[in-house]
This record gives sequence, C-alpha cells and structure tokens, in this order.
Amino acid sequence: MADEVTVQKARFSDRVRIRSILGRPDGGAGFAGQKVRISGWVKTGREQGKGAFAFLEVNDGSCPANLQVMVDASVSDLTKLVATGTCVTVDGCLKIPPEGKGTKQKVELSVVEVIDVGTVDTATYPIPKTKLTLERLREFPHLRSRTNSISAIARIRHALAIATHTFFDEEGFLYIQTPIITTSDCEGAGEMFQVTTLISHTEKLERDLIENPPPTEADVEAARLIVKARGEAVAHLKSAKASKETITASVAELNEAKASLSRTEERSKLKPGLPKLDGKIDYTQDFFGRQAFLTVSGQLQVETYACGLSDVYTFGPTFRAENSHTSRHLAEFWMVEPELAFADLEDDMNCAEAYVRYMCKWLLEKRYDDMELMAKNFDKGCIDRLKLVASTPFGRLTYTKAIELLEEAVGKGKEFVNPVEWGIDLASEHERYLTEVVFQKPLIVYNYPKGIKAFYMRLNDDGKTVAAMDVLVPKVGELIGGSQREERIDVIMERIEEMGLPVEPYEWYLDLRRYGTAKHSGFGLGFERMVLFATGMDNIRDVIPFPRYPGRADL
Amino acid sequence: MADEVTVQKARFSDRVRIRSILGRPDGGAGFAGQKVRISGWVKTGREQGKGAFAFLEVNDGSCPANLQVMVDASVSDLTKLVATGTCVTVDGCLKIPPEGKGTKQKVELSVVEVIDVGTVDTATYPIPKTKLTLERLREFPHLRSRTNSISAIARIRHALAIATHTFFDEEGFLYIQTPIITTSDCEGAGEMFQVTTLISHTEKLERDLIENPPPTEADVEAARLIVKARGEAVAHLKSAKASKETITASVAELNEAKASLSRTEERSKLKPGLPKLDGKIDYTQDFFGRQAFLTVSGQLQVETYACGLSDVYTFGPTFRAENSHTSRHLAEFWMVEPELAFADLEDDMNCAEAYVRYMCKWLLEKRYDDMELMAKNFDKGCIDRLKLVASTPFGRLTYTKAIELLEEAVGKGKEFVNPVEWGIDLASEHERYLTEVVFQKPLIVYNYPKGIKAFYMRLNDDGKTVAAMDVLVPKVGELIGGSQREERIDVIMERIEEMGLPVEPYEWYLDLRRYGTAKHSGFGLGFERMVLFATGMDNIRDVIPFPRYPGRADL
Repeated sequence: MADEVTVQKARFSDRVRIRSILGRPDGGAGFAGQKVRISGWVKTGREQGKGAFAFLEVNDGSCPANLQVMVDASVSDLTKLVATGTCVTVDGCLKIPPEGKGTKQKVELSVVEVIDVGTVDTATYPIPKTKLTLERLREFPHLRSRTNSISAIARIRHALAIATHTFFDEEGFLYIQTPIITTSDCEGAGEMFQVTTLISHTEKLERDLIENPPPTEADVEAARLIVKARGEAVAHLKSAKASKETITASVAELNEAKASLSRTEERSKLKPGLPKLDGKIDYTQDFFGRQAFLTVSGQLQVETYACGLSDVYTFGPTFRAENSHTSRHLAEFWMVEPELAFADLEDDMNCAEAYVRYMCKWLLEKRYDDMELMAKNFDKGCIDRLKLVASTPFGRLTYTKAIELLEEAVGKGKEFVNPVEWGIDLASEHERYLTEVVFQKPLIVYNYPKGIKAFYMRLNDDGKTVAAMDVLVPKVGELIGGSQREERIDVIMERIEEMGLPVEPYEWYLDLRRYGTAKHSGFGLGFERMVLFATGMDNIRDVIPFPRYPGRADL
Repeated sequence: MADEVTVQKARFSDRVRIRSILGRPDGGAGFAGQKVRISGWVKTGREQGKGAFAFLEVNDGSCPANLQVMVDASVSDLTKLVATGTCVTVDGCLKIPPEGKGTKQKVELSVVEVIDVGTVDTATYPIPKTKLTLERLREFPHLRSRTNSISAIARIRHALAIATHTFFDEEGFLYIQTPIITTSDCEGAGEMFQVTTLISHTEKLERDLIENPPPTEADVEAARLIVKARGEAVAHLKSAKASKETITASVAELNEAKASLSRTEERSKLKPGLPKLDGKIDYTQDFFGRQAFLTVSGQLQVETYACGLSDVYTFGPTFRAENSHTSRHLAEFWMVEPELAFADLEDDMNCAEAYVRYMCKWLLEKRYDDMELMAKNFDKGCIDRLKLVASTPFGRLTYTKAIELLEEAVGKGKEFVNPVEWGIDLASEHERYLTEVVFQKPLIVYNYPKGIKAFYMRLNDDGKTVAAMDVLVPKVGELIGGSQREERIDVIMERIEEMGLPVEPYEWYLDLRRYGTAKHSGFGLGFERMVLFATGMDNIRDVIPFPRYPGRADL
C-alpha cells in the first residue's frame, strides 16, 4: 500500500524535497498524514477567509510543480508570507485537499509551524508574479533561475549533461578534460580570445612610472659620474697606499654606486605600453612565455588521448571571439567531443545517432514533467520531436545526394536565399529543408567536398570528398559535425600543403600519424544546440546559465 | 558456464576491447576458442624461435593489463610488428596458454590475420620501451597517455569525474555550468588571467598604421580647405541663382568633401598602443565592453542557482595567474563546487564526507586494477588509504581544538616551520600533522577565526569565528574548503565594510539576501588534489592531461 511508504528527506538537510512528494505516481496522495518540513520560494500567495488563513504555492526547484501550502493565521503573521519570492521553511502535515477545491493538487501541506522566513520587498523585487519576457529576464541572471521557464531549462540541461556522461561511461569511453587555455589553433575554427597577464603588468608599470618617473638621461649621466668619481677615489687611495680598511670602505662605496647606476639604467629603459621586441609584442614576457588563447575545440588534444586510450571524449567550454549578435551564437558555449579509435565514418555515425537518441529517451524518462512545461509554455511540438528522434532511425545520405534533392526542390519552385550547387557549404535553410520537409526526421549527411572541410578529415578514394558527416535535426539544423580523421601521414601532409597551412604548429598532431597511427573518428556536438533542440527554445542565451556575447558578461 | 558467454565487441567498432577479455573474473579463460578482432599498441614485442613467431604485449588503453598476442611468421612480416609503439589490428583466436609458460596470462590471442599496422620509427619515437621519468614524459604531452602510469591516472581521473556526477545526480543536485569568462572576482581568491581581444585589435591597427600612415595635421587642414572652398562655391551658386541641377551637384560635392574630412579627422586620431580614455585603458572597446577575466571559482555564481533550485553543483575549470612553480599548483585546474540550500554547516560537512567516501568506494569497485598499478609503481599505501577513507567516519574538531592539539605537540617538542597560535591560517604542515599523525584518518576542522576567512562565510554567535570547514586528508592535507554562507543581509553588509571591500561589485550577490534569503552552505574540492590523493602521485602536473603553469601551455 502506498501510504506505508515514508516520505524521503533530502540527505543533507532536514527538509523534504517537493519532488519527493509530488513526483510520485499518485501525486503524493499516499503520503497523506505524514509530517514533513519543506522549504522553498513562494510563487503565489493569497490570504483568504478575511485573513483567517493563506494559501502559498511553494517551489523549491526540484520539479516544476508547486506544493500548495495552507497556513492558518493562528500559526503565523500571514502578511510576511504571501509575497512572491518569499523564502519559507515550514513544518506541517500532508493532507488530501477537500474535494471540489484545488482539483489539480493530490496533496497539500497544512502548516503547523513556520520555521524560517526570508522576506521580499515587493516594491523592489525584480522578478514579480507577473510574467517577464525572456529578454527582460536576461537582465537578472542572478534571479532568473527562480522562474518556471529558466528552472525547467536548467533541469533539462542537467539531465542532458548527466545523460552524456552516463552514455559515454557505459560505452567504455574515458572523459578527458582537454585544456581551456591553449597555444594551438584548431585549424582556424574561429576568432580566438587571448589569455594574458601582459596588460595588468603594463598597467601596473604605467602607474608606477607616473608615481616614480623613470630616470632621465641626466640622471643616468649623474649616476655615471658618481661611479667615475668613486673609481678615481679608489685608484687614488691605492696609489697613496692607504690602509686596507680605508681602501675596502672606498671599494664598497664604488660598488654601491655601480649597483645604483645599473638600477638607474635599467629603470631608464622602462617605457609605458606593452613590452616590445623588434617592434612586436614580446610574448616571452607573458605568463606562458608565448601567446595563449581560449580553446575553440578540444578535438586535436583529445585525439592524442584516443591514440593511446582508444575511446575518449571531452565535455567542456569552448570560445569564439566573434562579433555575432544572433540568437544562435555565444562567445562561451559547451561542446561534447568524443573520439573513437579503430572506428571509421560509419562507426562514427552510429555513435552519434546512438548518443542523440539516448539523450532523447533519457529526457522522456527522467524529465517528462519539465518537458510538459516546455510544451505548454514554449513549443507544443517538443515532446513529439523527442519521441520521433528516440524512436526513428536517422536517415543517411551522401552530400551529393543531398545536393540532388535540393536541386530537385529548386526545380519544383522552392526558393532558397543561398544558391544550390555541388561544392557549396550547406546553409541552415538547406539543412532544415532536408530534415524538416523532405525527410521529416533526423538525417546524417556524409562525404562532403574536401574544399569546404578541414585538413584533418580523411580523404575518400574519389579524391574529391572527405569522410565527414553532419547530423541534422528538425528545429536547429546542424547538431553534430564529425569525421573520420586522416591517419595517413603522407596524405595529411599533402592536405596541409594544399590548404596553405603551416606545418610547424601541427608537428605534435602529425606525430600521432608518425608513430603507431590508428584509424580513428570523432564528432562534436554543440551542447546548447542540443538544449535548444530539446526544449524548443529559440534563443541560445536562455539555455545557458550565464550567457556571454559581445558587450555582455554579467557576473 | 563461463564459456557460454560470447565476448562483447565494442559497440562502435569491429574490435573487442582488451578489458572485455581480461577484465572478467576468470581473466578471460572462459572465452578460449572464440574468434576476436583486437586493436592496440605494442608495449613490448619479441621474435622467438629464430623468427618463426613473435609475442606482442598489446594494450588498448581500456585497462592496465596487456593482451599477449602470438603471431606466426607465416601470417605476417614479424619485423613490422615488434617495435614498441606499433599500432596493430589483428584477427585471431583466444587460447589458454600452454602450461608452465606465461604464468600470469589466463588467455592469449593466436593471430589468424593481421588487418592493419601503424608502424613506428624506433630511431625517433620519443616514448621507447625503457621507462622515462615523469618529468621527461611531460615533454611529450601528446604521447604520454601511451604509458602505463599516465593511462592508469587518466582512467582513475575519469572514474572520479563520473563518480562525482553520479553522486550529485543521485542526491538530487543539479549540474550548473557556471561561466568561465567572468567580470566578477570571487573575493580576491587569487590573481586572475585577463581575457581580451584588445591586443589583437591593437596589433592589427599598428600593422595598418605602418602600411597606411595616418593623415598629418596638414592633411586634415587640406581637407578642411576643400570643404571651405566647396561651401563657398555652393553659396556663390545660390546667390547667383544658378539652376537647381547645378546647385544640387555642387551640394553633393560639398557633402563628399565633408565626409572625406570626417574620415581624415577620424583616422588622424588613430594612435598605436592599447586604446585609452583619460589615461586609462578604454575597456569599453574590449569584446565584453568591460574588463573580463578567467574565473577563479564558480561559487558565487552557483549560489544564485542554489537560491532558486535548492541543490546544485558546478564542476569546471578554474584559473590562477600565480607565479607558482611548485608541484602543488597549476594555472588551470578543475573544481567541484556543490551548493546546498536549506543546509547548515553540519549538513555541509555531512555532504563533503559522503562525497569523498563515495569516490573512494567507487574507485575500489571500478578501477581496482589501476589502483594496483599505482600501488606497485608509485605509492604502496594508496589502496589502504582509499579503504581507510571509504570505511572510517571522518574526525571532526573545531579550529580552536585543532590549535590546542598543535600547541600540545609543540609543547612535547614537535617543530613546525610556521608558529602555532590561535588566529593563524593552518599551514600544510599543521594540516598533515593533524590528519596523518594525530588522528591518522580524514578530519574536518570547523569554526575558523573570521579574520582569515572570506566575507561570505556565516558569522557564528561568538562573533569571533565563522561557520567554515576544511576537510583534511592524509597525503595532500586540505582537500575541501567550505562554509555556511552568511544569509543575513545586515551581517554580510557589515562584514564587507569591516573587510574594506567595495559593495558595488557584490550588489547582485547581496540581492540573494535581499529577496527571499535562504540558509545555504557549500564547499569546493580541488579535483586534481583528489586525483593526487587517490593515485599517490606527487606532482600535480602528472594528474591533469595538459598541465598549464608559468612558462608552459603545450598544445
């Protein structure tokens, strides 16, 4: 019998999570009669019965549902409790609500004692009961997690991250934390942010130069004259056969003058501005002794671990210093990049498909309540989309076939902004047309023209295409890009030359091909794109806790 | 019966992982007679029987053990296969080795066909069969994962990361990815790296100024004279009542001259060096419109999510631009930072203890083979240490009691480099003495003097101490630092003032206390310290895949 189960307390608190009550199949009804302590923030509160009691809808972030909490005026001052945003910790008894009243709630809490209250000044609280636009909420990144939408997205994002680690761990992949600060460039994947301590050192130096102006030429000359005079004094004492003590003292004075001259000369060379050598910035003086950047991808580095540990993945932040103000771009975003040794392009596609479908199933299983909230408030098709992806094998077609289909569409009158012909990089409109209109399911397009792809992608036998693949999904278009890597040292060297790239920065990468080279493949999934796909949100700034883009890096 | 089980192929490859064979309780003997494809790198190879056959020890990174592979000369050219570092993919049949021979191996592979070989030039391969020092291996970050030690550490690190996510997910915490680029400063936790696009823009400008020198004063004056002349021409035509067309044309010429003047004036202001305003660097021209840094901790940001979603954690890279060349410091390292709403210091300590013990149990269960390798090669006590932590409740004592114990020790003749008295920050030698000598188990020290702790830690009723705690473990000393956070707006404001900190940068943080404030606590675990603790390694540069420290950021 359900009512024999005791409600589960959070392990590191004396409260019960609201999810532990409402998240049960019976909506918590089986817990009726049990005493619990709950904590959370008041979503809405209203006094009723002329102030005799109050109903609070309380949410603690553990699930989208609120617990209805009833407080009698004899228990507490109700006016302190009802404001939206108030934090309450209360002890009470779970009860089946009287019939005919709150029809949705299977259980409510009747409060016995108010333990703690964090009040709110409603006059200044920026997150009122009335709904703010998502855009307005971005002004309050520190408070927006208290809203239904942003908290549901946070729980979905969490679930996708855990699904990612669980999937790869179960499949025998090792999580390798590739570096954030890098001195490599993943083949010009994008503009990079520089990481430096040079500016702060320069600022410090410039402040110092203002407070203690550097010596002038005259100061240096004066110091030189002192050295000269003291040198002469020593010589004089020596030739005069002065006492040892006198000479020693004089030599000490000379040495002191020399040291002072040396310091003066050194300081006279100090100049404001970044340190330069031969007209260029002298990066040997920077923290890492060379120019350093924020990574644009962990792929090349994680490949080094694949070529030793076989199956690995990285899941970390990546960066682009691009001046993009679109709803699709962030300066800081997270990427999942698996790398599979002894795997070809087909294995790679199989892995990508299995991973995406795993995440969709996971969400449907673990966060259906949050998905319902997203479907209700933002995108009514989002649950069906997850179900479609979870249950349908992805279509697979070559790039050449994709171009044929797009050309057919154009022949039948479909208009694209970007012209279609073999050799183009597929634009988002093409990708979405293929996945949303032609196939109406996720697609993998593979074997792209080598001219539009990176040097490290494996050249196919036709000499024209490379073993690259993109996973396209409805709603966001490209979700994943991957390839089999070129493992043949002679071919990759030729490709580097063909593309006019310098060899030297890639020597370490080429070593993987020189010594015990292995067939291997991998891909990258833009994690925020996956969250957009799952939640149906339109703006990428709403699916990452603290969005960074040109002009904004709050907190 | 064991031999009825079919050996499991890796899902996204046609090979079988060596772990799937050797990792079974019977060492793989039950698979004898089965045909498999395996891939990996040759650890050692030797021709025997005057070149009639060869034995290869092959490792694929899935476990520390190698599979013994026997190749007959009739199958392949053996000389290509035996060099250390060679990559092989072979088909063969699993066999019980003849008795009396390789006693350790429960099963070996008899090769039927060599599918693929990635050769090695032994003359230049930097990772030879003979063991290199860990220090020397750091010179080859792209190849060192092929060694027994670094690959075992990578697998242990992976296990600890997965244990972390599993623990917090199971306990109902949400993974919040806090920002890497930040405009906040976690209360001066350390020197920060600057993130900028100003330098690259300045370099570009300076190159441009050399190629196209800016206009001189004379150029500007000349442009002004043209504007003046054209203005007069227009005035003249108007007063002369010229035709509308003529006047329009003349006005167009005037406007062109004005535009040209404006461009010239603009360019004449261009100066080499970083952009300045009132003598200071003009950060409004930087990517984020203000000075930005790499985060030193995600705590303050993750607190904003705790005050809405209750129980959260962040696990990501953090940075210090400190000129530390020790075996304990990195410029880039990973931190696990949980934050618990409705939890006090005791809940926080319970969580920290449960988390650390969970990781130790996890390692003993999942990576015992790797731990055996570490015990054999580096630290014979490391397995016992894990067992101790997994099975023993942590000691708990106040800071005041800890000082008493240290003073007692000093009284009995124990010598410390750093003097002991109430009010000091415990040094590593003190911490290790307490955990290794006095208690011989993990310890939690709590209630530290407020003077040595951050402003956000909750003031205790004694007015002298704060609700802070450190977890100390044998081998590394401080593993975790945490505290209950000050949730009272008046007290935290007072603390900020007392410590001479500016209020403005913390306004958003204070909002959490102004609006629906909640009791909450949290802690931070230095992930690399946990890996050091588990593996028994001494140098932090060996427990992160790509170490960053002053002067070094390879790859």
